[in-house]
Amino acid sequence: MLTIGVDIGGTKVAAGVVDKDGQILDKVKYPTPANDPGALADVVAKAVEELRGRDGASIGAVGVGVAGFVDEDRATVQVAVNLGLRDEPLRDRVQRRVGLPVVIENDANAAAWAEARFGAGRGSDHIVCITLGTGIGGGLVLGGELHRGRFGVAAEVGHYRMVPHGRRCACGNHGCWEQYASGRALVAEGQDLARTDPDHAARMLEIADGRVEGIGGECITQAALEGDAAALECFRIVGEWAGLGLADLAAILDPECFVLGGGVSDAGEIILDPVRASFARHVPGRPGRRLAQVRLAELGGAAGIVGAGDLARR
Amino acid sequence: MLTIGVDIGGTKVAAGVVDKDGQILDKVKYPTPANDPGALADVVAKAVEELRGRDGASIGAVGVGVAGFVDEDRATVQVAVNLGLRDEPLRDRVQRRVGLPVVIENDANAAAWAEARFGAGRGSDHIVCITLGTGIGGGLVLGGELHRGRFGVAAEVGHYRMVPHGRRCACGNHGCWEQYASGRALVAEGQDLARTDPDHAARMLEIADGRVEGIGGECITQAALEGDAAALECFRIVGEWAGLGLADLAAILDPECFVLGGGVSDAGEIILDPVRASFARHVPGRPGRRLAQVRLAELGGAAGIVGAGDLARR
Amino acid sequence: MLTIGVDIGGTKVAAGVVDKDGQILDKVKYPTPANDPGALADVVAKAVEELRGRDGASIGAVGVGVAGFVDEDRATVQVAVNLGLRDEPLRDRVQRRVGLPVVIENDANAAAWAEARFGAGRGSDHIVCITLGTGIGGGLVLGGELHRGRFGVAAEVGHYRMVPHGRRCACGNHGCWEQYASGRALVAEGQDLARTDPDHAARMLEIADGRVEGIGGECITQAALEGDAAALECFRIVGEWAGLGLADLAAILDPECFVLGGGVSDAGEIILDPVRASFARHVPGRPGRRLAQVRLAELGGAAGIVGAGDLARR
Amino acid sequence: MLTIGVDIGGTKVAAGVVDKDGQILDKVKYPTPANDPGALADVVAKAVEELRGRDGASIGAVGVGVAGFVDEDRATVQVAVNLGLRDEPLRDRVQRRVGLPVVIENDANAAAWAEARFGAGRGSDHIVCITLGTGIGGGLVLGGELHRGRFGVAAEVGHYRMVPHGRRCACGNHGCWEQYASGRALVAEGQDLARTDPDHAARMLEIADGRVEGIGGECITQAALEGDAAALECFRIVGEWAGLGLADLAAILDPECFVLGGGVSDAGEIILDPVRASFARHVPGRPGRRLAQVRLAELGGAAGIVGAGDLARR
Repeated sequence: MLTIGVDIGGTKVAAGVVDKDGQILDKVKYPTPANDPGALADVVAKAVEELRGRDGASIGAVGVGVAGFVDEDRATVQVAVNLGLRDEPLRDRVQRRVGLPVVIENDANAAAWAEARFGAGRGSDHIVCITLGTGIGGGLVLGGELHRGRFGVAAEVGHYRMVPHGRRCACGNHGCWEQYASGRALVAEGQDLARTDPDHAARMLEIADGRVEGIGGECITQAALEGDAAALECFRIVGEWAGLGLADLAAILDPECFVLGGGVSDAGEIILDPVRASFARHVPGRPGRRLAQVRLAELGGAAGIVGAGDLARR
Repeated sequence: MLTIGVDIGGTKVAAGVVDKDGQILDKVKYPTPANDPGALADVVAKAVEELRGRDGASIGAVGVGVAGFVDEDRATVQVAVNLGLRDEPLRDRVQRRVGLPVVIENDANAAAWAEARFGAGRGSDHIVCITLGTGIGGGLVLGGELHRGRFGVAAEVGHYRMVPHGRRCACGNHGCWEQYASGRALVAEGQDLARTDPDHAARMLEIADGRVEGIGGECITQAALEGDAAALECFRIVGEWAGLGLADLAAILDPECFVLGGGVSDAGEIILDPVRASFARHVPGRPGRRLAQVRLAELGGAAGIVGAGDLARR
Repeated sequence: MLTIGVDIGGTKVAAGVVDKDGQILDKVKYPTPANDPGALADVVAKAVEELRGRDGASIGAVGVGVAGFVDEDRATVQVAVNLGLRDEPLRDRVQRRVGLPVVIENDANAAAWAEARFGAGRGSDHIVCITLGTGIGGGLVLGGELHRGRFGVAAEVGHYRMVPHGRRCACGNHGCWEQYASGRALVAEGQDLARTDPDHAARMLEIADGRVEGIGGECITQAALEGDAAALECFRIVGEWAGLGLADLAAILDPECFVLGGGVSDAGEIILDPVRASFARHVPGRPGRRLAQVRLAELGGAAGIVGAGDLARR
Repeated sequence: MLTIGVDIGGTKVAAGVVDKDGQILDKVKYPTPANDPGALADVVAKAVEELRGRDGASIGAVGVGVAGFVDEDRATVQVAVNLGLRDEPLRDRVQRRVGLPVVIENDANAAAWAEARFGAGRGSDHIVCITLGTGIGGGLVLGGELHRGRFGVAAEVGHYRMVPHGRRCACGNHGCWEQYASGRALVAEGQDLARTDPDHAARMLEIADGRVEGIGGECITQAALEGDAAALECFRIVGEWAGLGLADLAAILDPECFVLGGGVSDAGEIILDPVRASFARHVPGRPGRRLAQVRLAELGGAAGIVGAGDLARR
């Protein structure tokens, strides 16, 4: 049996035919319609029909990944801020249109599942996936199963508290992990450095055409890859905080492997080295504890489609 | 089928016959032999034999709970500091003596399992048990299964980091949760108060015969139950930190229910109220998020025997 | 001899004739010209001439208070962001126009001096004045003298670090005191509360016509004066942080008296009580240490004129 | 006129004849009598008489430095824990015995005064002296005068709060600066490193004959001077925290110069470099602010005698 995985992003809806080995056999892409649940279900249905038209009758189910809180029945999107959805019965809407079994999944969960089954975590039963994007997302595979939690909102690791009374977060709390170890945190470090020590940050400023506000994640990554000391310092600081978080997650979950994805992880060893060093220094039970692996994600942007498709199969 | 659950504590080995409903049908108790793995296995075997002698042939397996790191095969005690065990093949030693299938479990995991199956967490698939004893222990039941982690050391929640650069912990790290929300933390608050504001702490000092060092957990609990403002303040502070930890665990695990046990929980509503208030104020996703329950443990000291016995059945 | 004190604010230039007892005998007010140092000196001169015209020849000196960094010679405004001044020789500009000796002072220093000599701190030689306004300003009178520091920028207490890795501050640092204990911090607490617990914050929301962003300092103060629990909680939190800061300042400076001014102090006992409680609980050397007084400022908006005028006399 | 400065330490009483240029012309030393105020005054008197016998009639006053809280009249030692003194009228006891004017000073204040007048701070009017010993002591010279505070206990900088809810301090508070940036903190870093990463700490362990508890300040300093990476890391961490404290003190006091003394400063540039870097990175007002100097103390162990003697002259 084949399945179709759909990844609903803020700007595009990407869908693909996924086989039992996690390979994408065919793929289509449409723009995401804004703030219109009916139109969104139409687009998903259109993508599914197009792939079915080309790939025949062997498709047995559809999995849809979406950036938002999904309830424990995998039917309703409770909240998806960027898509303007609230208490949206997305599963039924799509199912009615395509006439196939449909499941809805949180997109970070779908991606984590893909990495656990076919990517950097394959072979392990206990995987924690961390997406270091603009914020921090997460997915947990425990005992070989995706852990969604009682209300479907587990693995919101970006909002566990790293620093009491710390930096204000858009979620209303203070000190959330994603204020310290995300892409946004990396950019804040770079811009702070450029403001308070422009000489030290000269290379980043140059890449950003001299504007502090122009210093973004790609600019810092480029400078770091060139060996620029200031950019490397930004990654070192963010990596230190990221590793602190992994240490906490290891204390709680004892996984075999952490998989790091998201834009910050594009820097490869430059972010991996400080994360691993910080993790090893801070995890409880040293010395003697067997350390979880820390690896880079392998599936990149395809993880969402692969994971949603594979979860629909199960 | 009946099973035997054994709870190896620092001073006594307690064993009981456990039925499929988590009832203890019969019970024996022996002193714990010090620092002698062979003698320890002998005592466990003696307890098992005594119960079998009285309760007949229906006993099919033995579960042994021990305060220490147990490997993922449930056979070897990696480290049990208080019992002087290191890389101890306890399962095989006991099995050889009693001729029944044996499993070894971490004692906090065993107790959590008992609460999840037969105590405050029954009916829920996602339970986080927190033991607020001298330190903080934990046990996770996720998707209806005990979550031991890859290396058998999951749920060491007492050592996830609450405060960066915080209070020094015996584990070698700083800022561990148990430095803020355990029984030891409660006592530290009480003694600090007595030292710096003896008038305010007068009732606690009176109970402790005037000695600051004499202020212990029971003294603070007694004063709090009498309504003493200073003692209530100690519980409020510790409860605030405990609730912060539950908020983090909810962000990560999204359980249906937290079960609080250990000596600090003997204060009942006095600790439960501030924990719940702090949890509700700090958990991410407010307003709108469905909140996990926070309940007191129900099985008390029997949880270890019941959980070890029931886990041996599976 | 009489003097003239001038208080240059963001919207108005207020000037008054000050006698040796800190009384204001006459007063004028003009709008502040925007971003034009010459025009600003003209306005100051015009105010001085008007007062001299009415009050005769007994005026011997002029003191000008300005919200900015003033150098140690009391001649140059290094930076005054809100007035658009940078390296501005304000003393000489004004002196040339009025033909009297002129000194320039930081406005918080001038106000502190007034409170120390004629207000809540009179009779004491060691006073720390804290202005809990939008941000936090300060002034130190030590050994009976205004302490300006080596480079004229002492008492920038709003930017000493309360929380490592704490809330981001406009100054480029993290965790500055004014992110926790200022009027802006009070408003942030009120708005956070309204966002995450609208029921609890109902009275504040009502005063603010239902809009979270409409909750400002006066709204919270009004609700608190009515006894609203949520508003009182906001003051309690801010007062706790304010008292922590006083404890640090007492450890460093050992003053006889703290004087609290600024908009937050308009709440009177409602802010004073939690500040005093927090200070007493956190100051080192307890029990036994003689505690500094914590008092409300007495001179209100006149402090700037009185202080600038009196400092010109010396 | 010459004076005599006396430095009462935990193990010895050192006294010297001090001239107006801060030179010690003659010196004697006796063991400190334990817990006997009368005997202590006898020893001080004996030292004074011996020096007077040798140095004639030109001695006009005696200054006595003592590690403890001294009241604002410089007459009474309120508390000196290590000497067993409490509300001790030390000035009158000594004065009666020697028949000369006597003043009592806090020893850190005396040492700060000596550095400000004759040592690393000479030529500056605003000096902050920090003694990085077992704990952290301090002394403030502001506007050319020793700042003792209203109750004589200013400059207890070791106990201003660096980290809310941070490491427990013997003073009863949490998070005091001296828990992070003192000699004791340095040793704690070294021992932590040796416990959790013995390979990395191999050289320090070797110097300490393999015992973690044997790693002390001198051991870490020796390893650091040899270039050992682990020991340098210990100094870097402690220097980072020390610089954070200087940044706070600069925000509050705006001194011209910080003078660092005490055992930790024996490492010279090894501690000075990270302190300066951290100070420059964290002080508010960057870029643009004129930075205070950070210098090593110059007078070493003689500062106590010189300062006490010179303060007696004034």
